[in-house]
Amino acid sequence: MCFIDEIMSDNDCKCTVEVCFSPKLFSEILTKEDFTVVLVDILRATTSICTAFHNGVHSILPVATLEEAKQLKEKGFLVASEQDGKKLDFADFGNSAFSFTREMISGKTLVYCTTNGTRALEMAKTADQIVIGSFLNLSALTEWIITQKRNIVILCSGWKNKFCIEDSLFAGALTERLLLQPGFTTNCDSAQAAMDLWHIAENDISGYLEKAAHRHRLNRLGLDDVIPYSFTLDQTNVLPVFDGKEIVDWK
Amino acid sequence: MCFIDEIMSDNDCKCTVEVCFSPKLFSEILTKEDFTVVLVDILRATTSICTAFHNGVHSILPVATLEEAKQLKEKGFLVASEQDGKKLDFADFGNSAFSFTREMISGKTLVYCTTNGTRALEMAKTADQIVIGSFLNLSALTEWIITQKRNIVILCSGWKNKFCIEDSLFAGALTERLLLQPGFTTNCDSAQAAMDLWHIAENDISGYLEKAAHRHRLNRLGLDDVIPYSFTLDQTNVLPVFDGKEIVDWK
Repeated sequence: MCFIDEIMSDNDCKCTVEVCFSPKLFSEILTKEDFTVVLVDILRATTSICTAFHNGVHSILPVATLEEAKQLKEKGFLVASEQDGKKLDFADFGNSAFSFTREMISGKTLVYCTTNGTRALEMAKTADQIVIGSFLNLSALTEWIITQKRNIVILCSGWKNKFCIEDSLFAGALTERLLLQPGFTTNCDSAQAAMDLWHIAENDISGYLEKAAHRHRLNRLGLDDVIPYSFTLDQTNVLPVFDGKEIVDWK
Repeated sequence: MCFIDEIMSDNDCKCTVEVCFSPKLFSEILTKEDFTVVLVDILRATTSICTAFHNGVHSILPVATLEEAKQLKEKGFLVASEQDGKKLDFADFGNSAFSFTREMISGKTLVYCTTNGTRALEMAKTADQIVIGSFLNLSALTEWIITQKRNIVILCSGWKNKFCIEDSLFAGALTERLLLQPGFTTNCDSAQAAMDLWHIAENDISGYLEKAAHRHRLNRLGLDDVIPYSFTLDQTNVLPVFDGKEIVDWK
């Protein structure tokens, strides 16, 4: 149930929205009870995970270390693993959404190890629920959150623990949609800032992304083909949730 | 001297500007050599420190713990100490800029212990230089940084390690002024975001601050009288720098 900040009637009960700009700041969040973490790594893990479920993956097994990923590869699992944006040699996939085609992954379990995303998932395990967010499932995610009536912490994976623009834009877009609902409120400066950045960017996301360092990093690696897709809203209704061991589709 | 990112001629040599939204992210900064940290805690430590030097304080001795502050009080020092915005009983001052009047502090050494500011100062000790920034000394600080020709990390104290709007606005204002100079560049998403927030806020700072959680926290404590002053640009030319032990005026 939602968090009651002060003595108020049931009708005034509001769920809080808090934004965390880096996994390293997650231990500082003010929301402590009955909360859902929305995990965000727009370029590229959470965009790719939403794509994988849209294309019928059965489940995704996130692992935090390369050693675990290699061991599971030897046991016959399909493995996606990248470091600094590049696919590692032993893996079947990097983490480009475009590699997770229906014919490659439908009905299968995918082992997933990425620089940023998996680390953030490990840190978010104190939450009551963890759900995967991306622009691809923004509307479906928003509607689901509204039905859940829990406090929300939007956890940006960032880039090597640093603030990054692309995750912050998503945090702003989701915060704005939630605050349009009477049941949600915020007292979080990060949420306010994220909404303002989203307001600046929303009508020309490609133009705004010219400012993002990671966009240029991917460009140098020849991996920026996925960027326009990653910022295309509402391509899917999947709701990937972490059940404590695997990521599965809520539906 | 300034940081050379790639092979380039001396004329192209650029100093980098990086913004760190929380002391907890300071260990993640990319700038590793020849850098000056600009320490920021607009509400209220760095605003108050600039005021104290403007009013003639000889030096400020920052301490990280209440125990140290109490011991130095017993030895006869003037002590400023607050927790969560409130002056502590044993101290002579809280950290309101208005309490550091010329008659109280001129020529004296002040022991200073605050929730956010001192902790950030401790963390910044790996820098080659540490300078205190506030809107009060923005122009003097900008001019001094330009003459120093070092890389710059703007370290926001935040509120309890969280991102805060008021420090980020200052980071944006300073970044913008530095990037107008040919000798400075940035590849930092936090710096870009801070500039965008500053652009939104600069023509109506009071209005924008309505979004800031700490502004409301101070209001509840009856400590918000200092806010308009804290956002008044260029009230002083002081340049408080930390010499490893004390904060002294550069001039």
